[in-house]
Amino acid sequence: MEGLEDRSSKMIRDCIQFQGYIPGKSIDEVKKKYGLKRVVKLASNENPYGASPKAIEILKNFKDLHLYPDPSYEELKQRISEYTGWEFERIVIGAGSDGILETLFRILIERGDEVVIPIPTFPYYHTLTRISCGREVLVKRGRDFRIESDITNAITEKTKLILICNPNNPTGNDEREETIREIVESTKAIVFIDEAYIEFADSRFDIDEENVIIARTFSKAFGLANLRIGYARLPSWLIKYYKAASTPFPISTIAEKVAIASLEDINWMKSCVKKIKSERERLYKEMSKIVKVYPSQANFLFFETGIDSSLVTEELMKRGVIVRDCKNFIGCKNNIRVSVGKPEDNDLFLECLRDVYDSIDGNSGMW
Amino acid sequence: MEGLEDRSSKMIRDCIQFQGYIPGKSIDEVKKKYGLKRVVKLASNENPYGASPKAIEILKNFKDLHLYPDPSYEELKQRISEYTGWEFERIVIGAGSDGILETLFRILIERGDEVVIPIPTFPYYHTLTRISCGREVLVKRGRDFRIESDITNAITEKTKLILICNPNNPTGNDEREETIREIVESTKAIVFIDEAYIEFADSRFDIDEENVIIARTFSKAFGLANLRIGYARLPSWLIKYYKAASTPFPISTIAEKVAIASLEDINWMKSCVKKIKSERERLYKEMSKIVKVYPSQANFLFFETGIDSSLVTEELMKRGVIVRDCKNFIGCKNNIRVSVGKPEDNDLFLECLRDVYDSIDGNSGMW
Repeated sequence: MEGLEDRSSKMIRDCIQFQGYIPGKSIDEVKKKYGLKRVVKLASNENPYGASPKAIEILKNFKDLHLYPDPSYEELKQRISEYTGWEFERIVIGAGSDGILETLFRILIERGDEVVIPIPTFPYYHTLTRISCGREVLVKRGRDFRIESDITNAITEKTKLILICNPNNPTGNDEREETIREIVESTKAIVFIDEAYIEFADSRFDIDEENVIIARTFSKAFGLANLRIGYARLPSWLIKYYKAASTPFPISTIAEKVAIASLEDINWMKSCVKKIKSERERLYKEMSKIVKVYPSQANFLFFETGIDSSLVTEELMKRGVIVRDCKNFIGCKNNIRVSVGKPEDNDLFLECLRDVYDSIDGNSGMW
Repeated sequence: MEGLEDRSSKMIRDCIQFQGYIPGKSIDEVKKKYGLKRVVKLASNENPYGASPKAIEILKNFKDLHLYPDPSYEELKQRISEYTGWEFERIVIGAGSDGILETLFRILIERGDEVVIPIPTFPYYHTLTRISCGREVLVKRGRDFRIESDITNAITEKTKLILICNPNNPTGNDEREETIREIVESTKAIVFIDEAYIEFADSRFDIDEENVIIARTFSKAFGLANLRIGYARLPSWLIKYYKAASTPFPISTIAEKVAIASLEDINWMKSCVKKIKSERERLYKEMSKIVKVYPSQANFLFFETGIDSSLVTEELMKRGVIVRDCKNFIGCKNNIRVSVGKPEDNDLFLECLRDVYDSIDGNSGMW
């Protein structure tokens, strides 16, 4: 059916020249493939301690599966307003921060519009730009992966959106407030600040301007990745367009109630973050003895593998640890991202990492 | 911030000239507003008997809120394949059939592309076309609301998508197989057949061509509206583009498991459908004595109000019944859509409807 495929559109012809999201291997797949009893997954930046028990409790009593959600999400927005200090009226709820970004692309980007993306960063930014037929303007980060002021040279009259992940996935660094402020002030384009990992950062800043959007998620620190609950603060003028373009029911009532329960049990989240940060520092110290690892303000660590990162990923997997090979992250060459797990999981990872590099040293011809 | 708003895009400037989805009033709001003790909502075509108890049971044991879903949705697709008889490889899962249609718009529609929509129909078709800056080509349905062959006159070389809801929301009629086949054969555009209500229809047909997509949902007959689980059969050539353009995790693992449990307990769905169809016929007969009501192949009835439909909607609400005023459905003038509820809910609706029209006859000056 060449004719149909050819006629069918923009995207089919020229925008979708890439693969969509490629999920990592599951624990069960790896167990089966390598005949392993114990496999840990440190590939998706999940909270290893799980959701608040009070959130899990919500599921036990929910029966109204047959009713549509109330799309105002009023109570959740109220709680988010208390948690963040953001104005209630400017908060929107989405299917993960991904869902919020999808809606923004629907509002803002059409063929040829420029989207500025500092690399390396979260791959979905590239995907969304391409399927919207936007033009990606890629800007390399500085030596410590922080965004440099020279990014403003890449911003033109055609720039509609600038995507900043802070702390950045996969590199783990945070950004300098003055640089972000400089970007915001240099342009009328919308600066989208993705704070998915902000709960793990030591410091934070708030830039509230007419062209700034801050997005967050319950998927990471709150341990609710399965339900995909995101939220954002929009400038007031954008709200009506967002509401018009958003999917009518981005999250279920179950998700709303679970998120509310998680905010009510904020100490659970805080104690998870504390444990994860403490393990992150231990892991950083231990990894530094083996590889070039970068400091992190998130719940993962990013390191140079020296040799082919796919080989190291595979060798770790053979030993029972699933990590994220960053080979397909634009701007990465030989890097791996490893999530901070529970102490025993991190121990296994460290042990395997040592073993992999020991065997490299001993068998350099094998690599 | 006029400058920013003005610059920000296509859509902000010229596509979003409409309101987004306007949800109906909730039961609690109506109770409060009119001081009522009993209010029934027959406005959203929900299954009044709820989800299968086995589906609800799933929620009680789910704890892995912190883990991302497995985006292959393999087991669910396998069960859907058994339920529908469709090839496994051609099935995709989405956030409701709405979510599937959103992804298709991302693949297919850009500024100026034509989308043919027989009216009146599901309002979200209009919303999606407009936010994609597509050009709506509206075609009036025939006397019984069925699509007529002359729709093919509206299909041009610029047509990318033809949206057919069968049975149709809000009118409740089904379509003639020969007409749909004629449309499919007349064009290379994609014909999207939305079978959200197919379980309530007396007969069905399957057209399987390279330009046909059939979408369905668990929201209606299966009573899972809260979780937004849709699925579709795509032509094989479209799968790779769909996968590239789809959001990575359209449904949660909870939703997947609940849908699987619902398919395993298919008799629950069948018994709900049987009761709803039987009530639909009773309601049709009784309503016919009061208003001009149309036969329905779905879980709702569509009727002419004679006078201003917003007034009738309001009068019904004052008496404790929430229905859907079709005033904002393009192609409707004075129509209401009422969902088939439980027998006692339908009794209340019939009583209120009689009362409203009695008071009209008695107080014609009041209206």
